[in-house]
Amino acid sequence: MGTPISRFPVPALDELPDDVRDRIVAVQEKSGFVPNVFLTLAHRPDEFRAFFAYHDALMEKDSGLSKAEREMIVVATSGANQCQYCVVAHGAILRVRARNALIADQVAVNYRKADISARQRAMLDFALKVSLHAEEVGDADFAALHEHGFSDQDVWDIGAVAAFFAMSNRLANMSSMRPNDEFFLMGRLPKS
Amino acid sequence: MGTPISRFPVPALDELPDDVRDRIVAVQEKSGFVPNVFLTLAHRPDEFRAFFAYHDALMEKDSGLSKAEREMIVVATSGANQCQYCVVAHGAILRVRARNALIADQVAVNYRKADISARQRAMLDFALKVSLHAEEVGDADFAALHEHGFSDQDVWDIGAVAAFFAMSNRLANMSSMRPNDEFFLMGRLPKS
Amino acid sequence: MGTPISRFPVPALDELPDDVRDRIVAVQEKSGFVPNVFLTLAHRPDEFRAFFAYHDALMEKDSGLSKAEREMIVVATSGANQCQYCVVAHGAILRVRARNALIADQVAVNYRKADISARQRAMLDFALKVSLHAEEVGDADFAALHEHGFSDQDVWDIGAVAAFFAMSNRLANMSSMRPNDEFFLMGRLPKS
Amino acid sequence: MGTPISRFPVPALDELPDDVRDRIVAVQEKSGFVPNVFLTLAHRPDEFRAFFAYHDALMEKDSGLSKAEREMIVVATSGANQCQYCVVAHGAILRVRARNALIADQVAVNYRKADISARQRAMLDFALKVSLHAEEVGDADFAALHEHGFSDQDVWDIGAVAAFFAMSNRLANMSSMRPNDEFFLMGRLPKS
Amino acid sequence: MGTPISRFPVPALDELPDDVRDRIVAVQEKSGFVPNVFLTLAHRPDEFRAFFAYHDALMEKDSGLSKAEREMIVVATSGANQCQYCVVAHGAILRVRARNALIADQVAVNYRKADISARQRAMLDFALKVSLHAEEVGDADFAALHEHGFSDQDVWDIGAVAAFFAMSNRLANMSSMRPNDEFFLMGRLPKS
Amino acid sequence: MGTPISRFPVPALDELPDDVRDRIVAVQEKSGFVPNVFLTLAHRPDEFRAFFAYHDALMEKDSGLSKAEREMIVVATSGANQCQYCVVAHGAILRVRARNALIADQVAVNYRKADISARQRAMLDFALKVSLHAEEVGDADFAALHEHGFSDQDVWDIGAVAAFFAMSNRLANMSSMRPNDEFFLMGRLPKS
Repeated sequence: MGTPISRFPVPALDELPDDVRDRIVAVQEKSGFVPNVFLTLAHRPDEFRAFFAYHDALMEKDSGLSKAEREMIVVATSGANQCQYCVVAHGAILRVRARNALIADQVAVNYRKADISARQRAMLDFALKVSLHAEEVGDADFAALHEHGFSDQDVWDIGAVAAFFAMSNRLANMSSMRPNDEFFLMGRLPKS
Repeated sequence: MGTPISRFPVPALDELPDDVRDRIVAVQEKSGFVPNVFLTLAHRPDEFRAFFAYHDALMEKDSGLSKAEREMIVVATSGANQCQYCVVAHGAILRVRARNALIADQVAVNYRKADISARQRAMLDFALKVSLHAEEVGDADFAALHEHGFSDQDVWDIGAVAAFFAMSNRLANMSSMRPNDEFFLMGRLPKS
Repeated sequence: MGTPISRFPVPALDELPDDVRDRIVAVQEKSGFVPNVFLTLAHRPDEFRAFFAYHDALMEKDSGLSKAEREMIVVATSGANQCQYCVVAHGAILRVRARNALIADQVAVNYRKADISARQRAMLDFALKVSLHAEEVGDADFAALHEHGFSDQDVWDIGAVAAFFAMSNRLANMSSMRPNDEFFLMGRLPKS
Repeated sequence: MGTPISRFPVPALDELPDDVRDRIVAVQEKSGFVPNVFLTLAHRPDEFRAFFAYHDALMEKDSGLSKAEREMIVVATSGANQCQYCVVAHGAILRVRARNALIADQVAVNYRKADISARQRAMLDFALKVSLHAEEVGDADFAALHEHGFSDQDVWDIGAVAAFFAMSNRLANMSSMRPNDEFFLMGRLPKS
Repeated sequence: MGTPISRFPVPALDELPDDVRDRIVAVQEKSGFVPNVFLTLAHRPDEFRAFFAYHDALMEKDSGLSKAEREMIVVATSGANQCQYCVVAHGAILRVRARNALIADQVAVNYRKADISARQRAMLDFALKVSLHAEEVGDADFAALHEHGFSDQDVWDIGAVAAFFAMSNRLANMSSMRPNDEFFLMGRLPKS
Repeated sequence: MGTPISRFPVPALDELPDDVRDRIVAVQEKSGFVPNVFLTLAHRPDEFRAFFAYHDALMEKDSGLSKAEREMIVVATSGANQCQYCVVAHGAILRVRARNALIADQVAVNYRKADISARQRAMLDFALKVSLHAEEVGDADFAALHEHGFSDQDVWDIGAVAAFFAMSNRLANMSSMRPNDEFFLMGRLPKS
């Protein structure tokens, strides 16, 4: 109600292919609400499937980066790309995964001033370069990450997350995808 | 404790001139804590006095703009300038003054996607132009604001707030001024 | 031989999961060679599968845009992002699909000077905005496309192709993905 | 007469509060004319008072920077911000304070090519970074200034002058503040 | 003496080919000094000849633009390109040709705030676009100039002057070409 | 026929001054066609003469740079300036002079990923800096080239070619100069 969640059509659940609907129902049961990115992409089932398969391959599997670090990459690059959906939604996930109520806002506005380690700072320097100036990535960038102990597989992960959200940010901005109200407060209150 | 609030010296309260200390004590009594901008500027009493006199002239007096609207200008331009202190601290004040838990994050990331009126959108278009490309401000910008009912005095207010925080953002980024932890949650919970 | 096709590991075919290998063999049989993007992504099978599923959903299915028009979007945005692999490989595909030996170089360097229709010019204006300034996309951009007869579904297609290759360009630049020599001449000679 | 000195109202002297009028009369007696910045800000007495209090705290007091060096910062950053009033008016003051007829035009157009010391070059590198990319200021910038013998207090002065004129440039561009004709020739002729 | 006029070799007059030396002697007799651009280019006689032949074809012949207008284009675009030699030297020529002591500084810093006609403003808008974003020049830019009465031949002149000084600015910045001291004051004093 | 080769008048050969016509006839006899840059500039004979005299002085004479290297500079900087004529026409010449069918497309899109030597990479780094940020050229840039064995005369050549094509790119984009169809395939096929 009120502000639409997307400029594009949002199908009703019962209009969706079974696998798409099942995924949406599953996330609702786990999270208590359906993040709007699922509803915004649902009008294109093939793209929906590929998007979330890609997302899960990058964000959910084992990696040399922690899940919180991957969310830092999302939040920092999405801030640079002025993507409201991604900053708000992944900011919430970052707070939860890092168990830190402050980190998401710090990273979204200016990661150079955030309470992060030197290693994480190097990670975000590279992620931002991939996001904003990938054409200039070269040997010196890889060397800087190696100095902080990142392997080439880690470098791929950093760059691939930045690249995936370069796409995601553009989809969200193009469609005026609206972050759910639930995300804004999530992870900000101490667990009782 | 831990992360410093500024790269520069932070004097103890009893080292400060009386009027500076009195101002700091007054804000602490009102807010329950001392926003770090007061402590960061205190090592330069003359600049402290001028900064807050200017701030209050723009942000506290009567104006054709509501106080919440003036805070929107601060948050939107500070987001564009990647100023962590100003986005977090004035984001809190914006939530309180607008009685809206979502507006600050929306405006900070991308005001074009925020839940604001067409009039406020025009106000922020101008504020961002003053903040980022003031050299190009011209007749068409004034005409666009007049169409939305802004007077020339209102235009001055919009531009002057954007200009003042162009300074403030740079001071905060230069000094790595740290937003107080208290700001992050302020205004996010419904009043019971 | 000589210059590597990627900074990252390129597995041998017999090290790959069956479905990944099958896809690579199929493209080789159809095209006569294996485009290096298949080999560059193969070390990450899950990402490989999602990438090509997404690619095919956008580039191969029916759409209000012709396949040549979708390739124009790829070439124009990849030129702006200085992505050598995508400009060269998709330039070749564009020449083939448009049956036009000149169009790819024209669009890659400056689409505003290319031999395209006013409708295609509007399509590329939007694609470039999504690619470079998605945060500013708004009502006026949709209206401009509607004036040229594009439906909202067409607008999604334009923006989604631009967004997907925003990702792809960054992966290619990050990995120094090398375009196959075969692409450079493809589609340049008249069919005898 | 002819071209207005501001887009905004310019009050007559006898309409002004006593302290504002006194300040204006004093500057007129000292300089022989009233710089237009005094007249442009006079319609907002509280802002006028804070602006000049801040200006004087930064530009007139003792500092590790000479007054001429502080004017260099104003001229270089105002050139980058395309602020006609500040370049012309402070260019005049710089010529007078540095007793150098050439320096202001050199610094305004490209300080990297000006007849200044390596120390002053480092000072202006930092000032320009604060003016144009303050979000990126970090440890390396402080270290570079320390190498040239600047103390942290000097660094504050450099950054604070750059920040204050980031505000001033925007006020002048927003209001189309016109430099007085007197400034253009001031300091260009040898003292007889 | 002191600061060199170029990073590159400056030949003695008697080392130069006759025609190059004759040109230099002629300009010295006319102006009372040798503008450093002649000395800086003299080590490459063929480039010297082509440069001044081109310059004279654009700047000295009859045209729909006055000579002062052509100098305005030089000063405005050279300001945008931060070319100290061209702003200072051609600023002097502009003052002389326009018989206006203020116009050059105004145009160099921000032509949008200069005392020029609407027609001249349109002329400079186009010149700056050619200088900074020529890739975007299109039908609308030509239409805007036609509305102000410029013919296509005038448009060529505006663009060709902007293009020639795009080259000249880069040569001067690459070689650290130093403007002669004489230029700074030229045209600033009323004729007695 | 069809798309015009220029927005501006293209004179018939028999309307041209003898020397201009002779030059055009000579190039046609040598190349088998008349590159459109000759026809586009012909309506301004004095500018035509100066342009080609300058071009030949830089591109045809002996130099520490090979002719292929000079064409690399043209292609790389013209790609950055989105100049279709120069990328296509000089891309063809580069392929011929370097006897390399791939190099032009590589350099045009992203020279950092091209099959060039470290020395050529340094050459293009400098050329791009002159083309895009000449105002920042300084000692460190010269030192970097000297390390690769370039003399100061070589540095001049690199910068002067970049500067000349900064002009040429702007003329071509302003006039919508169309590359001849012949250029697109030239140098792409192995010599039999």
